[in-house]
Amino acid sequence: MNTKHRPPEWAFEFHGHLCPFMPLGYRMGMRALSDLGAAREKDHTLHVICELGEGHPQTCLMDGIQVATGATFGKTLIEKTYWGKLAATFWYPGKTAVRYALKAEFLDEFGKREFFAYRKRGVEPSGIPSHVTQEAIDWTLSLTDENIYAVQRRADFQYQPPKGSFNKALCSKCGEYVFERYLRQQDGKPVCIPCAGGLHQNIRS
Amino acid sequence: MNTKHRPPEWAFEFHGHLCPFMPLGYRMGMRALSDLGAAREKDHTLHVICELGEGHPQTCLMDGIQVATGATFGKTLIEKTYWGKLAATFWYPGKTAVRYALKAEFLDEFGKREFFAYRKRGVEPSGIPSHVTQEAIDWTLSLTDENIYAVQRRADFQYQPPKGSFNKALCSKCGEYVFERYLRQQDGKPVCIPCAGGLHQNIRS
Repeated sequence: MNTKHRPPEWAFEFHGHLCPFMPLGYRMGMRALSDLGAAREKDHTLHVICELGEGHPQTCLMDGIQVATGATFGKTLIEKTYWGKLAATFWYPGKTAVRYALKAEFLDEFGKREFFAYRKRGVEPSGIPSHVTQEAIDWTLSLTDENIYAVQRRADFQYQPPKGSFNKALCSKCGEYVFERYLRQQDGKPVCIPCAGGLHQNIRS
Repeated sequence: MNTKHRPPEWAFEFHGHLCPFMPLGYRMGMRALSDLGAAREKDHTLHVICELGEGHPQTCLMDGIQVATGATFGKTLIEKTYWGKLAATFWYPGKTAVRYALKAEFLDEFGKREFFAYRKRGVEPSGIPSHVTQEAIDWTLSLTDENIYAVQRRADFQYQPPKGSFNKALCSKCGEYVFERYLRQQDGKPVCIPCAGGLHQNIRS
């Protein structure tokens, strides 16, 4: 059994429960750093574009990716395309981007583990007996990367992180600070998007 | 000096660098759990709707929120409205949602710390002398919550997490699995969004 793919203990503390998908994302992220020849990201260079969405399971992959690579949500280095696929592309300037997808054959076999019977009955991960979850994790650790991940080098992959600015101004209505790219104008005064009566949550402006 | 607001050591390892905004998000998250009377989220109940965006600084707040609350990106419990504001609303079913915003007066004073002079010159956080960053962190620790955060109970706050489904099918073109809500149809066959020639990354479908 290969133990180098085990996330550090604090990764489980961060994630909040024992599950097999966080470790699979961790392993994907570690493999990506190795394939890219990149170090864990301290600041803001590496970006990970995940093809997952919402309202479906197995998104825990992305916490493992955050842990392994340092491409965290807080640093705006990880995002979702809302495609509902268990895949992610790792982009680093000057290197060839690389995409990893969980293979369908792997998912078919994996889905037979007892862990998934609990999940489909609606049991949350923290409520599943730990030996059941551990069995699913251990099974993945018995497999090679090639059993699990389809790997695709993407010389064509285009990505441009947004240009940053420190500029900000007070919204003339609510008095809160707003960073410049999100300031709107109303009656010649700067306003934030909600004070502008604007777009609701979840809409990129 | 108040040390209960210090994140655990692994939080800095997760985040990747020493900075003052991750700890400010951690403190916001801990305060939110206390105000809501909720425990750190193990599974999928608490949701945090952050008013931040991209292409601006200080987003590191959100890593501190993930660390404190367990509302992680991988569990699809934290999201952005793209409003460019340093605020977040914490939602838990059956409780009154609560919003925290960094006060403008706090940000004005905070912006005078030497740390920000480095950042505005384009120095990444990992490149700033640690005593400079620590000074900024220690200054925030000398303040009360009331100095830093505007707190707003939001009895009117509406939020509905998306309904989940385990159903998935293979894309008839690429052969990869796609969760049901993201499957599209082409010539009577199921396809994934990219194979449908569909929406580009960053667009919610």
